[in-house]
Amino acid sequence: MPTGLPLGGVEAGGTKFVCGVGSSPEDVVVESFPTTSPDATLDGVIRFFRHASPSAVGVGSFGPLDLHPESSTYGHITSTPKPGWRQFDLAGTIARALAVPIGFDTDVNAAALGEGRWGAARALSDYLYLTIGTGIGGGAVVGGKVLHGLVHPEMGHIRVPHDPERDPFPGSCPYHGDCLEGLASGQAIARRWGRPADEIPDDHPAWELEAEYIGLGLATWVCTLSPRRIVVGGGVMRRRRLLPLVRHELQRLLGGYIESVALTADIDRYVTSPRLGDRSGVLGALVLAERACRLADGDTPSSHSGKD
Amino acid sequence: MPTGLPLGGVEAGGTKFVCGVGSSPEDVVVESFPTTSPDATLDGVIRFFRHASPSAVGVGSFGPLDLHPESSTYGHITSTPKPGWRQFDLAGTIARALAVPIGFDTDVNAAALGEGRWGAARALSDYLYLTIGTGIGGGAVVGGKVLHGLVHPEMGHIRVPHDPERDPFPGSCPYHGDCLEGLASGQAIARRWGRPADEIPDDHPAWELEAEYIGLGLATWVCTLSPRRIVVGGGVMRRRRLLPLVRHELQRLLGGYIESVALTADIDRYVTSPRLGDRSGVLGALVLAERACRLADGDTPSSHSGKD
Repeated sequence: MPTGLPLGGVEAGGTKFVCGVGSSPEDVVVESFPTTSPDATLDGVIRFFRHASPSAVGVGSFGPLDLHPESSTYGHITSTPKPGWRQFDLAGTIARALAVPIGFDTDVNAAALGEGRWGAARALSDYLYLTIGTGIGGGAVVGGKVLHGLVHPEMGHIRVPHDPERDPFPGSCPYHGDCLEGLASGQAIARRWGRPADEIPDDHPAWELEAEYIGLGLATWVCTLSPRRIVVGGGVMRRRRLLPLVRHELQRLLGGYIESVALTADIDRYVTSPRLGDRSGVLGALVLAERACRLADGDTPSSHSGKD
Repeated sequence: MPTGLPLGGVEAGGTKFVCGVGSSPEDVVVESFPTTSPDATLDGVIRFFRHASPSAVGVGSFGPLDLHPESSTYGHITSTPKPGWRQFDLAGTIARALAVPIGFDTDVNAAALGEGRWGAARALSDYLYLTIGTGIGGGAVVGGKVLHGLVHPEMGHIRVPHDPERDPFPGSCPYHGDCLEGLASGQAIARRWGRPADEIPDDHPAWELEAEYIGLGLATWVCTLSPRRIVVGGGVMRRRRLLPLVRHELQRLLGGYIESVALTADIDRYVTSPRLGDRSGVLGALVLAERACRLADGDTPSSHSGKD
């Protein structure tokens, strides 16, 4: 960076805040703080960054969020059921404490940017990053820019076919019951089968069912967003059996209707794991910080390309 | 236009090709040709344009299409089951006959452009145009540009919940059975109830069921694309009862999770009818023609904004 100072990034999650300083996967130094109350959590985060003196900080946060710069609640976490965090001014709290430019976006949009810059979606202008973990979320880059629109996507909350005879679990989403997140998140798996996903053996029928639900999500997003690649991360996807099952389900559901070699011979490259592992989010937050720097230097938002 | 000549537009549909010359809704002159064989259909289309001498022609076509300018089959209709039209070089045939620049996109992307320029989505950078007719399709404008990606969206083919006890109709899609188009298109309605949609009375349960399926589609797209407005056209939507039912279903399905006044107090403006009536497609094709002109004049593709 022109300042010679490092960039800062925060992946603000429901269980921990992952903070990093640096400029790339090669030099980033990372530290995590458990998510407790906003005050206690931010106290650790701010002390970490005061010590590192970054030129700007990017924040990729759990949501829903207010991402509209012209809004009076810009930078806030909005309707989360998480105790204490509802209407919390996350970006503003960090900005006031550190007095540096702040970039702000959803956790999955940050992760999408990280994978686009250094990971599995490099040089692509249209792709999707998904996380299948405690919850399910997605960040889309369309025409080289992160998709925001009216609010921001909430991809985990799409409805998918659910056969209650085959899968009597009613779904775990407090808002929608059996939306995709309610059926296929790590939380849903744990509640359906009575034990956490990582304790369920490889040969358990849980994995075929999980692949079917994720495949339904992917088919929906292929038909809607027509991404050039889908990067699927998150804790549930650490199960190595799952990704090949998901690819197979996606092909079965599309039924050959959309003609593209990406969806046939190249399916293993089309549906792929993050290349930055667990660091997609915090590294993507560095990209947000870099953009915040440029904006502060008077650059225009149109330079905010997902490819840069 | 700098040439003083009018623009030409074609909405290439499965039952008719609607051709227009002019520059806006105020002056466009429209003529339709039934869709028969490619040769006979294009014969009428080309004669119409030879007489009108447009400076460029935009084509919004039924698909799937090859939209990648670098492809050897750019401008072709690809995997359609429609007899005679599979692998037909639609854009090339018109270009060779008229020797003018040709713009080419899907019928729904053209209609989205038309509504963005003169209709219900004016001045919006992120919106969705849907048609619920013989088939179901959608065109999305994201960050001011038409979304294309890997191929182009095929929104009608998303899977939605389908309760076979309540609705035993297995779906009419030859590729997917009970995808959204298979359950809720005009064709599906006619096959499920044994008569065309426009012969089904207002108080028939067909309309509640139809609203549920369309609502499921809209909820999926709100969660995925976060559009700032959804414009819903097509023959099935001419039933006046349907749009209010669809709005209600969308709100019910979202369950208050996404906080935006657009989705609550302003829902009637958020989910709305096309303002160009049946002419969204052919007028949007004029926008495609205008862009083809500019490209031919050496302008860059980045000026291809949905807002211009």
